[in-house]
Amino acid sequence: MLGRVNHIAIAVPDLAAATAGYRDTLGARVSQPQALPEHGVTVVFVELPNTKVELLEPLGDNSPVAAFLEKNPSGGMHHICYEVSDILAARDQLAKSGARVLGSGEPKTGAHGRPVLFLHPKDFFGTLIELEQV
Amino acid sequence: MLGRVNHIAIAVPDLAAATAGYRDTLGARVSQPQALPEHGVTVVFVELPNTKVELLEPLGDNSPVAAFLEKNPSGGMHHICYEVSDILAARDQLAKSGARVLGSGEPKTGAHGRPVLFLHPKDFFGTLIELEQV
Repeated sequence: MLGRVNHIAIAVPDLAAATAGYRDTLGARVSQPQALPEHGVTVVFVELPNTKVELLEPLGDNSPVAAFLEKNPSGGMHHICYEVSDILAARDQLAKSGARVLGSGEPKTGAHGRPVLFLHPKDFFGTLIELEQV
Repeated sequence: MLGRVNHIAIAVPDLAAATAGYRDTLGARVSQPQALPEHGVTVVFVELPNTKVELLEPLGDNSPVAAFLEKNPSGGMHHICYEVSDILAARDQLAKSGARVLGSGEPKTGAHGRPVLFLHPKDFFGTLIELEQV
């Protein structure tokens, strides 16, 4: 079921500082910040040769990363996104295994404009997993 | 400086259960477990098309992941490992930027038999970063 690691998401309290750290201290290529108000985050992509890191800063009042940053004020690894070829087939197979999909179970449109689902971290050893159909 | 994402490490309290979850529920290819007593962990690699996930279970009395699992009993994302071409040059450049390398500052031999260093998570927005020379 799992394909490529599409991205590793890192929540940070100060996106400008984190962007500068990855660009200047770690010497990585970084994107311009993109505000995604419908997702409650502003993102910067750190482009690595084989995958990318997505730096996330809360945007607006109901950001999905706000609670994470309250628990982890310095920031931290937030989720891993894996690519799947058929997100509905993946969802149905996971449901049969007893794994919980967050929310309504219907895919939403993710930051890259493609259907995504999130899986309950308690069912995956403490890791929040995003599946993205590519 | 940063090259490929070599692996994303996930600490888990029960390696057999996590291996079964990635193999059977998520349909990924997983390795046999490898005990690495000199690193204080037993590891299983989840092989994805572009990188790998390293599942870590504590081994022995002084495991570097034991304290993490005390704070995160279900498990969680532990570190990201990036490849670098010259680990001593990377270390010296990071030191000039004021970033702290953990331990003595001398590279150790990592799980893949190559020189590695870890960077202080407080200097990198809450993320523990491993650099591995390839």
